Amino acid sequence: MPKLVDHEERRARIADAAWRLIAERGIEAATMRAIAEAIGMANGALKHYFPDKNSIIRVAFTHVFDSTNLRVRERLRGRSGMAALRVFCEEIMPVADLTDLEARVVLPFWQRALADPDLKRLYTDSMALWRGQIIDFLRQGREEGTVRTSTPDDVVAEQLLAMLNGLQSLALLDAASGTADVQRRTVEAFLGSLK
Amino acid sequence: MPKLVDHEERRARIADAAWRLIAERGIEAATMRAIAEAIGMANGALKHYFPDKNSIIRVAFTHVFDSTNLRVRERLRGRSGMAALRVFCEEIMPVADLTDLEARVVLPFWQRALADPDLKRLYTDSMALWRGQIIDFLRQGREEGTVRTSTPDDVVAEQLLAMLNGLQSLALLDAASGTADVQRRTVEAFLGSLK
Repeated sequence: MPKLVDHEERRARIADAAWRLIAERGIEAATMRAIAEAIGMANGALKHYFPDKNSIIRVAFTHVFDSTNLRVRERLRGRSGMAALRVFCEEIMPVADLTDLEARVVLPFWQRALADPDLKRLYTDSMALWRGQIIDFLRQGREEGTVRTSTPDDVVAEQLLAMLNGLQSLALLDAASGTADVQRRTVEAFLGSLK
Repeated sequence: MPKLVDHEERRARIADAAWRLIAERGIEAATMRAIAEAIGMANGALKHYFPDKNSIIRVAFTHVFDSTNLRVRERLRGRSGMAALRVFCEEIMPVADLTDLEARVVLPFWQRALADPDLKRLYTDSMALWRGQIIDFLRQGREEGTVRTSTPDDVVAEQLLAMLNGLQSLALLDAASGTADVQRRTVEAFLGSLK
C-alpha cells in the first residue's frame, strides 16, 4: 500500500516542520505558507492537514508530546521507580537544546488552548497520561524502598506535574531559574524528599 | 495638580479595562479599539499608552501582578512564616473567580514574552520579587519552628515558584487538576512537607 505509506510519511514531515517553525520562529511565523515552503509542498495541499490555525499548534504539540514520551521509553530500559522518575523529568525539563525548543511549542499551545475545547482536551489527556506514569513510578519506588514519603502518590504526582509545567515557563522566561543546574537541583531535591 | 491626578486615574482605568478584556475574551479580543470602547475614550488617545500590541499585555500583566501582591499584603497583617506562605499561595493559585481570571492574563503573557525581551525582563523581575518573598517567609518559619526541612530555602523557593507557575496552566486547561480542592491539597501537602 504505497499510498498509505506516503500519506503517513507526509504527515510526519508536516508535523516536524510545524513544531520546528513554532519553536524556532514563534507561533505567528508558523503559517501554512511557511510550512509548505519548509517541506516543498503546495500550499493548497496542506489544507487537508490543517483546516484552521489551531490545527497547526495541535499537530506541533502532539509531535512534541509523542517525541518526549518516545525518548522516555527508550531511556527507561531496565529502569523503574525513582530511577525511571528521574529519566522522565530529565526529558521534560527544558535543560537541553531539544527540550528548550519543545517548551517553545508548549507555551503558545497553552495560550491557544484557553479558547479551544479540542486543544484543552488534548492537554487534559496528555496530563492524564503523565499523571498515570508518575503514579506507576512512585508505586515501583515504594516496592523498591526508594519512595517512603507519607504524602499519597496522587498528591505527589500532582506536585511533580505542576512543577514540571511551571519549569516550562520559568526556564524559558526567567534568567535566574533558566539554567539547567537550577532546574535539576529543584527537581532532584523534590525527588530526594520522597525517600 | 488636577492634570496629574487625571492622568494617573486614566492609566488605572485603562489597565483595568485591558486585563479584564484579555481575561474574559482572550488576547486577540483585547484590541486598542475594544479597550477604547470599554472606557469610553477616543482610539487615538490610547496610542500614547499603548505604542504597540505587546504594551497592552505588559500593562495587563503588571496590573494583575500588582493586584495579587496588594491582596497578599492586605491579608498578611499579623501573619508570618508558614501562615504567610499559605496566604501568598492562596492569592496566586487559580482557586477563585478572580485568580482564575488573572491566570487567563498570565498564559498569553508567557507566550508573548517568548519573543519580547522587555516582557521577559518584567517576568524575571516579578519572579525575583516572589522568590525573595518566599525566602523571607521560609526564614520566619524556621525561626518559629514551622519550617524544619533540610532542603535549603532557595531550593524550596524554586520548587514552590515552579509549582505555582505550573498550577496556572493546569488549573485553567486540565479538568482533573482544575478544581480548587486539588490545587489546595497539592500545595498544602508541599507546605506540610516543610515541617
